[in-house]
Amino acid sequence: MILCDIGNTSYDFLINNQHQKVFLNKNLPQIKETIYYISVNDKATAKLLNVYPNAINLETFLTFQTSYMGMGIDRKVACYGYEDCVIVDAGSAITVDIMERRKHLGGFILPGLRKFHEIYAQISPKLDFDFSIKQNFDKIPQNTKDAIAYAMIKAIILPIKEIAHDKELLFTGGDGELLSSFFEKSIYKKDLIFDNMKRIIRANSCIA
Amino acid sequence: MILCDIGNTSYDFLINNQHQKVFLNKNLPQIKETIYYISVNDKATAKLLNVYPNAINLETFLTFQTSYMGMGIDRKVACYGYEDCVIVDAGSAITVDIMERRKHLGGFILPGLRKFHEIYAQISPKLDFDFSIKQNFDKIPQNTKDAIAYAMIKAIILPIKEIAHDKELLFTGGDGELLSSFFEKSIYKKDLIFDNMKRIIRANSCIA
Repeated sequence: MILCDIGNTSYDFLINNQHQKVFLNKNLPQIKETIYYISVNDKATAKLLNVYPNAINLETFLTFQTSYMGMGIDRKVACYGYEDCVIVDAGSAITVDIMERRKHLGGFILPGLRKFHEIYAQISPKLDFDFSIKQNFDKIPQNTKDAIAYAMIKAIILPIKEIAHDKELLFTGGDGELLSSFFEKSIYKKDLIFDNMKRIIRANSCIA
Repeated sequence: MILCDIGNTSYDFLINNQHQKVFLNKNLPQIKETIYYISVNDKATAKLLNVYPNAINLETFLTFQTSYMGMGIDRKVACYGYEDCVIVDAGSAITVDIMERRKHLGGFILPGLRKFHEIYAQISPKLDFDFSIKQNFDKIPQNTKDAIAYAMIKAIILPIKEIAHDKELLFTGGDGELLSSFFEKSIYKKDLIFDNMKRIIRANSCIA
């Protein structure tokens, strides 16, 4: 059984419990087993299905209660089965979702760290600095490089802190580990999406 | 006396107490009086000086105490003369500076609202929504459009709130009025930069 999480920038495969990231413009790996996928990217889905027409879209098997309109399948899978916590998936976008008493209360979407950083250079070449998080974010910045890193980190962590109150925080995604370090009551789960995809497959044993 | 604040996207003139915004790729207006300018844009400055070689750079006349390295002249002018407050200039970038006992303590730089909004479409066409601030930002968003507007506003106002504590907030710039509406203890001064440019000219009466 192969899992694939199709995002905005890459195919993330789980093959024999090993991660394999394939950027969208690259060739797909050779796979003989059944692929179970979720996708937020229609074009990349079409490419996968062109090569592997029998790949199974797990979205069909997921029941997820929410009044949120247009919630991406990756967010639904990330939240799947949790009772009371805030789930943060920090990839090219950072999605923040709130679960309370097994109910999805809503959420919000921040730009991912890399894109957030890219805007500065787009505003002015004078704001084009490498991103570093080595500084102390309790001190008021004393130069432009720190002023940008400080603003980026605060802009991301403060809205999450505000909405989380004293809820547990669950981080995943490429920048999940980094961001979780700013929160005391947080857990980083690298494989949150894949683990939950497996739980969905088990809950629908007929499809395995 | 004509004032000109040269930014990343436009020349902002004050001519006979009337604002005149000229985008960087447009022709400069015909001016006969002396122009006093400040600039964060070297290329645009060269264009101004090519047409008006006698224009006077006010930066030469400004003394501003700070340990912040590389602070833009527009930020120094915005902070000029203030004792205890937070100064927010919300243009293509949002600069936030802290004055305490007439001393500049440092600051940070957020992306301006327009640029911030543009990132979302760059991340995914599924995140390409018009920006609206009509929603209630105390409620957890229930759709992607609100999820983006909520994140943008929170990402901008919470870092400002955190650093301001109970200091007075002074807003200026194109989005200054909008952002100031999220703060109780705030004042919007449309002409903060021009008013302070005038104060600098008066304090250096020899140049007038």
